[in-house]
Amino acid sequence: MREALRLIVIGGGTAGMAAAARARRLSPQSAITVVERNPQASLGVCGLPYLVAGRVPSVGSLIVVSEKELREERRLDLRLCHEAVGIELQNRLVLLRDNRRGRQLELAYDRLVLAPGGRPVRPAVPGVGADNVFSFHDLNDALRLLSWLEGRACRTALVIGGGYLGVEMAECLLHRGLRVALWEKRAALLGLEASLNESLVDHLSRQGVSIRLGSALAGLEGGRTGPVQRAVSQDGEHFEADLFLLATGVEPVSPLLEGCPLRRGSSGALAVDRRAETSRAGVFAAGDCIEVEHRVSGRRTYLPLALPAARMGRVAGENSVGGSARFEGALGTVAVKVFELELARTGLDRHAAEAAGLQAQTLCVKTRTRAGYYPGSGRLTLAVTFERESRRLLGAQAVGHEGAAARVNLVAAAIEGGLTVDGLERLDLAYTPPLAPLWDATVLTGRLSAGSDSGWRN
Amino acid sequence: MREALRLIVIGGGTAGMAAAARARRLSPQSAITVVERNPQASLGVCGLPYLVAGRVPSVGSLIVVSEKELREERRLDLRLCHEAVGIELQNRLVLLRDNRRGRQLELAYDRLVLAPGGRPVRPAVPGVGADNVFSFHDLNDALRLLSWLEGRACRTALVIGGGYLGVEMAECLLHRGLRVALWEKRAALLGLEASLNESLVDHLSRQGVSIRLGSALAGLEGGRTGPVQRAVSQDGEHFEADLFLLATGVEPVSPLLEGCPLRRGSSGALAVDRRAETSRAGVFAAGDCIEVEHRVSGRRTYLPLALPAARMGRVAGENSVGGSARFEGALGTVAVKVFELELARTGLDRHAAEAAGLQAQTLCVKTRTRAGYYPGSGRLTLAVTFERESRRLLGAQAVGHEGAAARVNLVAAAIEGGLTVDGLERLDLAYTPPLAPLWDATVLTGRLSAGSDSGWRN
Repeated sequence: MREALRLIVIGGGTAGMAAAARARRLSPQSAITVVERNPQASLGVCGLPYLVAGRVPSVGSLIVVSEKELREERRLDLRLCHEAVGIELQNRLVLLRDNRRGRQLELAYDRLVLAPGGRPVRPAVPGVGADNVFSFHDLNDALRLLSWLEGRACRTALVIGGGYLGVEMAECLLHRGLRVALWEKRAALLGLEASLNESLVDHLSRQGVSIRLGSALAGLEGGRTGPVQRAVSQDGEHFEADLFLLATGVEPVSPLLEGCPLRRGSSGALAVDRRAETSRAGVFAAGDCIEVEHRVSGRRTYLPLALPAARMGRVAGENSVGGSARFEGALGTVAVKVFELELARTGLDRHAAEAAGLQAQTLCVKTRTRAGYYPGSGRLTLAVTFERESRRLLGAQAVGHEGAAARVNLVAAAIEGGLTVDGLERLDLAYTPPLAPLWDATVLTGRLSAGSDSGWRN
Repeated sequence: MREALRLIVIGGGTAGMAAAARARRLSPQSAITVVERNPQASLGVCGLPYLVAGRVPSVGSLIVVSEKELREERRLDLRLCHEAVGIELQNRLVLLRDNRRGRQLELAYDRLVLAPGGRPVRPAVPGVGADNVFSFHDLNDALRLLSWLEGRACRTALVIGGGYLGVEMAECLLHRGLRVALWEKRAALLGLEASLNESLVDHLSRQGVSIRLGSALAGLEGGRTGPVQRAVSQDGEHFEADLFLLATGVEPVSPLLEGCPLRRGSSGALAVDRRAETSRAGVFAAGDCIEVEHRVSGRRTYLPLALPAARMGRVAGENSVGGSARFEGALGTVAVKVFELELARTGLDRHAAEAAGLQAQTLCVKTRTRAGYYPGSGRLTLAVTFERESRRLLGAQAVGHEGAAARVNLVAAAIEGGLTVDGLERLDLAYTPPLAPLWDATVLTGRLSAGSDSGWRN
């Protein structure tokens, strides 16, 4: 990789910075420009909810690599508060708008990495444009929310959407002293299995979050020009609040890419190959604007998550300067900690498996997080989904006071290693009373699947 | 499995109770006798250190299955405070001594499961027989230590041996208010890699445990008939203490088995096949009296640990009533929590790998347990050993304020799934700031091994 290239990376988030770092590492002589619309690049955006909660003291704490280091050590031409507003693929030009100075400029590239991120979904209902209705996706969103909160006596918040951002924000707003309610249109938070969802709803309720499931937002009502005062659900329920937070997902849409003649997948996100290359040679893409291959279903899937974004970013960065890295797909592994409860999931649940044409079965095991007699031992529920005929592992979900992510990670590793559900029985895991029970939930699942569980502790 | 058999299980510990439970489950009509020398069967012996620390309130808390349930629901003929003192293999008879009534009796069997456990190693040095020198292996040992501690003003303890029991006991004695020192004859506690050992020694020292490594016990000195007053090491160091605790390992020796003409392995433990059957048909064995197959080296190894004991016990129980279960070997996965530090290991370290004739390499990664900015984030060190040529994973060790066992378990699952060290890079693990950093230590190890680590955070 000796060629000196002009590389432009659009987006200084997780995927973009991973691409820029990798490209710089492999190609010291290339000129690398990173374009970021926010006033800060290389920010741990997943930490923004904790900034709102006050658990993270400042935006500065969330900076992964400082601006100085990015500019001086990594020699990146960093364009903060710059927005890419157009791309001429034919002429290899990117059109930028400098939002601070209000001027436009053009930059030429040899290779391009697109990592502008996705966009928070805003339900198409009346009232979502009001001042006290917030999306929460990037630093600008977080700063806007914080400044709004600090300016007034806000007592009640309604979080709309019970995915991982929704439950995190419910906790963080409650932690600031607000009364919090959460509406989710599906029957379960985070699409969890019924019994796991029950544990989570129960835990959130005990902490004071008022949960309504199956409650889809119909509209936000209030004074004609002033703030919204209440949410109305499709089944006619009302809820009055001072603040409305939309946590209704992310979509792979950006005004920039709308106008780009690059191939898209069925989700609307950019289609890339395993080398992270788009339908246009020399143009790569990563992060929340692309589809990735799901390692279990084999299908192209929209998974706007940090780890696949960072991985695909590295692949895009490497290949943009002449490398041959490949992205091997993602499982969609996710974890959340809310209050004193952990939850995690990976791969496909039964519904997703059936939608992918697989005959799936789910086994559910309830056990302890530590030896039952050891102080702090709590309950843990693990649900493992597998293909009926082949016994191939498809996915898992877990909820517990601790160790839920660890068990789901074990299933993710088992999927990577090609184990069947019965193979989980053979895992030789660490046992010590303060950290684990003798029989781990994963092992018990394997035993249950093999029909060799006695149902007795021994 | 319709035959009504007379099954005797010698030992009501982890392996024996697993065997009895499994046999009862599969053979409701068989007569099952369990012989246990202690006054309690089905006890979580790994919890005994915490009984000494006062963290577990009573022996009763450690009971896994109550005596009533064992007798009534599982219909076990439970002989507590009974010791098996002889076996006539030819005549299928077990000779028992009832230690409460002081009488002997004979029981006939059709099938036998041997699970009498191992014996704590007592160094062959002067003074080990004194009243203030303790082994710590079973309930009787724990009760003896507790009653001794309660009777006097004991201020200082020396723990001899820095394996997992030694470090657990150091913590538990300190927790009771004693000043504690620990001597280990090897260069590292738990045979850890140098940098991991350093973290552990540092942590124990900060908590007030005074550690000496490379310090082998030469003798215990004191009044001729009274308690021992000081320990002397082979290099002439002295240490004065009120209490001396031997944590110098377990050996597969029992007076009962000494006289039994059953085949043994090179460690001196009983040799069994994968069906847990000894060299004598119809006689099975499990737990700390046998060798198991090491899943990585393929060699028969003495691994006196609870999980393989329980697993082999289940296999022995199933096969003793006509089943065909198989034990697939063990990795020797172990974890300990001492004070605020977790440590864990699995498989072979470099020395063990080289002793098994493998060309091994170890990679060491230092990372965080959570996102760096999230409160409570601590340091984690993971060392992964793999075979140089094939890249096959051989083992791992980890030390950290949390998550060490979870990472070692992931490597154990990866070994089970046949992943190479490079394959660790592909693990799709759960990321969320309160629980994990974006790049897990296992993934970073895979990246480092593949030579694709940038050395940069991104």
